[in-house]
Amino acid sequence: MGNYFGKGTINLDNAPSVLSYASAVGPKEGEGPLADYFDYIGEKADFGEESWEKAEVILQKNAFRAALEKGQLAETDISFIFAGDLLNQCTGSAYGIRDFDIPFVGLFGACSTMAESLALASIFVESGLADNAAAMTSSHFCSAERQFRFPVNYGGQRTPTSQWTATAAGCVVVAPRKDPPYIKSATFGKVTDMGVKDVNNLGGAMAGAAYETISAHLTNTKQNIYDFDMILTGDLGKVGSGLLIDLFKKDDVDIANIHADCGMMLYKFEEQDVHSGASGCGCSASVLCGLILKRITEGKLKNVLFTATGALMSPTMIQQSESIPAVAHAVHISGE
Amino acid sequence: MGNYFGKGTINLDNAPSVLSYASAVGPKEGEGPLADYFDYIGEKADFGEESWEKAEVILQKNAFRAALEKGQLAETDISFIFAGDLLNQCTGSAYGIRDFDIPFVGLFGACSTMAESLALASIFVESGLADNAAAMTSSHFCSAERQFRFPVNYGGQRTPTSQWTATAAGCVVVAPRKDPPYIKSATFGKVTDMGVKDVNNLGGAMAGAAYETISAHLTNTKQNIYDFDMILTGDLGKVGSGLLIDLFKKDDVDIANIHADCGMMLYKFEEQDVHSGASGCGCSASVLCGLILKRITEGKLKNVLFTATGALMSPTMIQQSESIPAVAHAVHISGE
Repeated sequence: MGNYFGKGTINLDNAPSVLSYASAVGPKEGEGPLADYFDYIGEKADFGEESWEKAEVILQKNAFRAALEKGQLAETDISFIFAGDLLNQCTGSAYGIRDFDIPFVGLFGACSTMAESLALASIFVESGLADNAAAMTSSHFCSAERQFRFPVNYGGQRTPTSQWTATAAGCVVVAPRKDPPYIKSATFGKVTDMGVKDVNNLGGAMAGAAYETISAHLTNTKQNIYDFDMILTGDLGKVGSGLLIDLFKKDDVDIANIHADCGMMLYKFEEQDVHSGASGCGCSASVLCGLILKRITEGKLKNVLFTATGALMSPTMIQQSESIPAVAHAVHISGE
Repeated sequence: MGNYFGKGTINLDNAPSVLSYASAVGPKEGEGPLADYFDYIGEKADFGEESWEKAEVILQKNAFRAALEKGQLAETDISFIFAGDLLNQCTGSAYGIRDFDIPFVGLFGACSTMAESLALASIFVESGLADNAAAMTSSHFCSAERQFRFPVNYGGQRTPTSQWTATAAGCVVVAPRKDPPYIKSATFGKVTDMGVKDVNNLGGAMAGAAYETISAHLTNTKQNIYDFDMILTGDLGKVGSGLLIDLFKKDDVDIANIHADCGMMLYKFEEQDVHSGASGCGCSASVLCGLILKRITEGKLKNVLFTATGALMSPTMIQQSESIPAVAHAVHISGE
């Protein structure tokens, strides 16, 4: 049974298993370096739908259905879905899940949602409060751009610090302890504000939250960075990853060789013109549910501290001269 | 320890206690019939802030601080805050919690958030995953109106089915079992869509979700409506409450005498011109954290099935001719 380590960290003694996982992405992600790892790659970014929001709904449905299929599960095997996304009112999740007869726990953690949902699903399963639980999130470049910045066809210039919102979704099904990967512990982060007001530098806004949550997790679990093969952040991109490494240097900790960032893994940097890298809930979700969980399952990675980071950026608050708060949640996923 | 009853229902064997609770409201709510029960009533709806969104942030801060004070708690006594609100990117919560050094689990359940957050906080405490946990939500008439419908100073006519978004927040602190009120069980609802497309009839959009969740809770816990003094819905208002009663009549169940609705309790109907009643996350939050928990503590109410209802209404999806999905979550709060 789980227990509280203090300061946001929960230890899952009887670590539950990742029973199944799946990813669904758009054409640009399907041309990136991780193409071989995705379960569904759409030919067109609208997936045949008449709006970008409805296209994002398709991503969640496809990721969920693929996760069920890969786990040989029926809809009725899932006790709860923990999900959220970037769209206002989390419509990607609400409309995505509407067709399924499954209790829905709606989350908002922006791009931290994959870790938040995975942590909650794991806690429910480990505590005996669910048979199997699904964790899911998505993002879509076009629905996010027009909501947070400019209409897509406006064609605005993108700054060097900007990141490309991934058109992608990921779904993990957590089940009572059986085979690896296991979910061993999780840390929920606090809201951290670096004072960044630039909506084109979300990596910078999130680096502090990543630092706080990773530090808290290591301190609370009495671990250090060498207990992990990989400390994997969500979507800090080039700029945010650099800042994170600098923040740890102040503690005389060099995480550069152990740190990886989903935002730097999804696209071919130069060729695909993504500036500081990828972002969006679907970025860390698809990298986790594409490459990372596969590598853990194959035994190629042993211990990953998956730390998804969310910029809680509101265009309304930005217009009111506010800075961008961020949050990060960490989940220790282990192959042993 | 808790266990899973199936179909969304969790039983909390070692039912945790409501250690403290508090509410904060605006001037209109302070002129309503429940005025004596609120901990903070602002003189002006802007609470001295320069925007409606920042005013909503003040509501959450005041509710949280009042809950700490009433429970003689320090910030460090709270292991987690579970919170969300109606604003895009849940800014009422993110900016409200930013000043506190407490792990944050962000939620989106629209007006179901008070029940969702209370259920999760109770589950964490009962499972030993938190010492004390806070559940919180808010809404503000002016920030909600301009986000979901029209700018406030547009002065648009309101339809008879429309509801008045409460300017209010509520916060509950859940602690390990000691004195009543106790949180005995909870049911997370599924996304339910009645096909309603009218953004001025959210009570109608939510009635089906309330029916599904209350029915599931009763079936899964093998209880009937007479096991409760009160089945309290969140903010169905007059129209939605009538529909809920009709839906139960089809099952030959007459809930009219046991049912109450927070949306029908917050204002003086005729005098305050609120049409179908109150709505907003803060409606059920302030009625629960004002009147209801006090009456349970005093022994005047024994068993309440608090069922907050959320219309997952997105203006973007409405513009795309979509209907409004809804969700409801139920929490059994008991004085014995």
